[in-house]
Amino acid sequence: MMNKVFIGLAVIGIPISVIGALMHWPSVFMFIVYCVTIIALASIIGRATESLAIVMGPRIGGLLNATFGNAVELMISIFSLKAGLISIVLASLTGSVIGNLLLVGGLSFFIGGLKFKRQKFNIHDSRLNAGLLIFSVIVAFVIPEVFSDTMTNHETMILSIGASIILILLYIATLLFKLVTHRGVFQNSEEGGETKGAEETPEWGKWTAVIILAIATITVAYVSENLVHTFNAVGEAFGFSELFIGVIIVAIVGNAAEHASAVIMAYKDKMNVAVEIAVGSTLQVAMFVAPILVLLSLLFATNMPLVFTWPELISMITAVFLLIIISIDGESNWFEGLALLSAYLIMGIGFYLL
Amino acid sequence: MMNKVFIGLAVIGIPISVIGALMHWPSVFMFIVYCVTIIALASIIGRATESLAIVMGPRIGGLLNATFGNAVELMISIFSLKAGLISIVLASLTGSVIGNLLLVGGLSFFIGGLKFKRQKFNIHDSRLNAGLLIFSVIVAFVIPEVFSDTMTNHETMILSIGASIILILLYIATLLFKLVTHRGVFQNSEEGGETKGAEETPEWGKWTAVIILAIATITVAYVSENLVHTFNAVGEAFGFSELFIGVIIVAIVGNAAEHASAVIMAYKDKMNVAVEIAVGSTLQVAMFVAPILVLLSLLFATNMPLVFTWPELISMITAVFLLIIISIDGESNWFEGLALLSAYLIMGIGFYLL
Amino acid sequence: MMNKVFIGLAVIGIPISVIGALMHWPSVFMFIVYCVTIIALASIIGRATESLAIVMGPRIGGLLNATFGNAVELMISIFSLKAGLISIVLASLTGSVIGNLLLVGGLSFFIGGLKFKRQKFNIHDSRLNAGLLIFSVIVAFVIPEVFSDTMTNHETMILSIGASIILILLYIATLLFKLVTHRGVFQNSEEGGETKGAEETPEWGKWTAVIILAIATITVAYVSENLVHTFNAVGEAFGFSELFIGVIIVAIVGNAAEHASAVIMAYKDKMNVAVEIAVGSTLQVAMFVAPILVLLSLLFATNMPLVFTWPELISMITAVFLLIIISIDGESNWFEGLALLSAYLIMGIGFYLL
Repeated sequence: MMNKVFIGLAVIGIPISVIGALMHWPSVFMFIVYCVTIIALASIIGRATESLAIVMGPRIGGLLNATFGNAVELMISIFSLKAGLISIVLASLTGSVIGNLLLVGGLSFFIGGLKFKRQKFNIHDSRLNAGLLIFSVIVAFVIPEVFSDTMTNHETMILSIGASIILILLYIATLLFKLVTHRGVFQNSEEGGETKGAEETPEWGKWTAVIILAIATITVAYVSENLVHTFNAVGEAFGFSELFIGVIIVAIVGNAAEHASAVIMAYKDKMNVAVEIAVGSTLQVAMFVAPILVLLSLLFATNMPLVFTWPELISMITAVFLLIIISIDGESNWFEGLALLSAYLIMGIGFYLL
Repeated sequence: MMNKVFIGLAVIGIPISVIGALMHWPSVFMFIVYCVTIIALASIIGRATESLAIVMGPRIGGLLNATFGNAVELMISIFSLKAGLISIVLASLTGSVIGNLLLVGGLSFFIGGLKFKRQKFNIHDSRLNAGLLIFSVIVAFVIPEVFSDTMTNHETMILSIGASIILILLYIATLLFKLVTHRGVFQNSEEGGETKGAEETPEWGKWTAVIILAIATITVAYVSENLVHTFNAVGEAFGFSELFIGVIIVAIVGNAAEHASAVIMAYKDKMNVAVEIAVGSTLQVAMFVAPILVLLSLLFATNMPLVFTWPELISMITAVFLLIIISIDGESNWFEGLALLSAYLIMGIGFYLL
Repeated sequence: MMNKVFIGLAVIGIPISVIGALMHWPSVFMFIVYCVTIIALASIIGRATESLAIVMGPRIGGLLNATFGNAVELMISIFSLKAGLISIVLASLTGSVIGNLLLVGGLSFFIGGLKFKRQKFNIHDSRLNAGLLIFSVIVAFVIPEVFSDTMTNHETMILSIGASIILILLYIATLLFKLVTHRGVFQNSEEGGETKGAEETPEWGKWTAVIILAIATITVAYVSENLVHTFNAVGEAFGFSELFIGVIIVAIVGNAAEHASAVIMAYKDKMNVAVEIAVGSTLQVAMFVAPILVLLSLLFATNMPLVFTWPELISMITAVFLLIIISIDGESNWFEGLALLSAYLIMGIGFYLL
């Protein structure tokens, strides 16, 4: 049902995006068209990835999810980088981190908690995720920020590149750890109903999925490039700062499809999946997308250091601490969801006013 | 026994406060009189609230405790606000947070731990409290501070108001969570002896308690207003900074009665109550008193943003981390109490020297 | 085997150190000779301390370990203080903290984890250590730093002295807690094989150990003083900053012997010992060596406040959070070790570039 809506939106949105871009229709209108189209395409990319993942088995499936799970964000960010909009890229990375942790996590816990008094999820996963969140956000993001104060731009860039390479290598090691050496630990879910596996049938066949994935990704790239060029006009029209557009709007558009599926999973009491979407996406952004973008920026005119503004960094740090303390016991309830949402709201007001 | 002492002190202290204020007796002497009187009245307010709470049942009782538990602090702060002493208000809020966590918590753990090798308390409460401490101090206090660096005063005030409203709403949600939707979780105390309930008889009848509460609260208001006007003279006489008066002295006076009862509870091995007083009071201050004062300040000439000085904020943050790591396992011993007290001492020296 | 190598290195290194110092051989060469000699002597001091600890029983043994465990670092630091190289002392303290937590801890978890899928260690110890790390690094190091911003040098020094005395007293209380009042808790190790005790025979007799300890300590003092005077030349020759020499090189040399034994213990699955070396050494440095140096500096021309640079402080803080979140569950695996090592590497690059 929902899936058909997204396909419909894509079918309508793509031609309007193309025509509107050629005809130079008003930026604010086109901004909305692009956003809707991207959300619809992201949903289709998600389904194609999932189908492929089932066909290819959990290991390659995990890799596919890790790569295509943030394809949309990556696209928007690459075109922003190309346009030299570094502060928007960093802002949208921040937005993905706090959006996934606080908004997606919060909505999942809250909506799920309205139906179920307590919801449990894998405590081993929570602990591993907590460690990785501390590693990426508290160590790998904070160190370049603090050290860059007394560094030249060149030194800051070298440190950023070093931290990025280490983040990517550790992210690969995470996959190795979860999918190979310690696989049992993370699959023996206590809730038997959640295990994906033999009985699951993919929505699309292998080649259908590959073709859909390819077309949708290329289209997302095209629409994303157009979207980036409307930021300026939209900011002026609504009085939004670049920071607000990046942290709140781009992040919500880029992650809308994931948001929806996390909440649906929470409502079905499949909390392991919901938490994996919320925290897993955050880790993908922090340990894979962000460092990849730092490295890719070396190909463009303006290099992007791994140095956020203080409001961005502090928002991510406090979001990480709040999520960890709330999820480390492997249980959630509506109140914990509300606390996460409240934190997101406070940050949202802050970024709006900045 | 102790109760009679407090009533005696109040009976002596109130007339001296009135006469001394009218006769303009020396500020330093009157400062001491006011402090003693307030401590005595706070104890009486505490007893009246408790009696009412028993009569009215746990739900309304919880609300009463939440409101009158910090009546004294609220009074002192409101009159300080009226006098434009914003930095003293923020300092006394800081003092309440670190005083409750480190001094009350520390004394309870230490004194209790001298008698008992290990003391246990409700681990669900500890986790919920940890989450709320992170939310209020780490998120809601830190975000306005960090964001305000690049904001105008007007924008800072809007963010402060937003954060305050969210804090109060989440505080109300906490009561709903603890007293309504998840009540069982927090009442099934493992130590049966601690359950308040049917067999408990109130010290005073309903109307006696209401009248005592009303009179004591009004008197506290009067004495608090006088107290506020001695700060300047006392600071000069002893070489104390406004910050030190606010963080250490006002906070100790405003919380003395609670301090005493927490330690007594710890000594009786009723650790759930002791922890609830220490951490519960902190949360009341952070999630209710502080935001209420921000909103009330809109009625006065000088608005108070939710922006602490860095030493204040860092003291609260580090106090929160220390308390969480020490209490999250639901156990305490003398050494953990000593560590909390040591942290308080370091901060006290710091505020004295500032 | 390894022990004989160290004795051989000491026997060769000491005369070369003496002759080279008298003959003014090239600084870079002598720097290497001093480093090797110190590593060898540190290993011998470690063995002598261990022998004495077995003979004298666990209580005095614990005290001996606490004192001589960091004899080398103390020596290097005292001679650096005497030479007025305060920034190198603070840097080497930082280096000891992050080196012990991330490099030693990381190597132990990683190497041990390659052999064993999961390794367990005492969870009570982990929790106590977590509390002490938060107390020393997050409270006692952060407060002087933040407060000193608006303090005179004199006030900063008073606060540093106060914090140092409190750190030392709490460190003594830790020994009391672990060795006297709560001894059972920390000895009932779940892994029976680890208990030191009756069956263990000391390598050296009491007086042999005392004499070896005395000679090795005096020799280390002599070599350390020489080492300190090569820092300047080595820094210039390799383009290392003082900070990098202090944080990375001095810290590795000063702790090399401990590093080796921690990793060997991890490889033998004696994780309690490995963790005790990594975290225990950190706590000795933070709660004993650092404050002792602050107090000793009062005897020298230049007083040393307990105020690190921001990059140093943030490195220690983030290392503490990462180690706590990784070790608080009382389990380790190769991946957790790799995360700690990755964090060390990022910080190392940062300090190199500063």
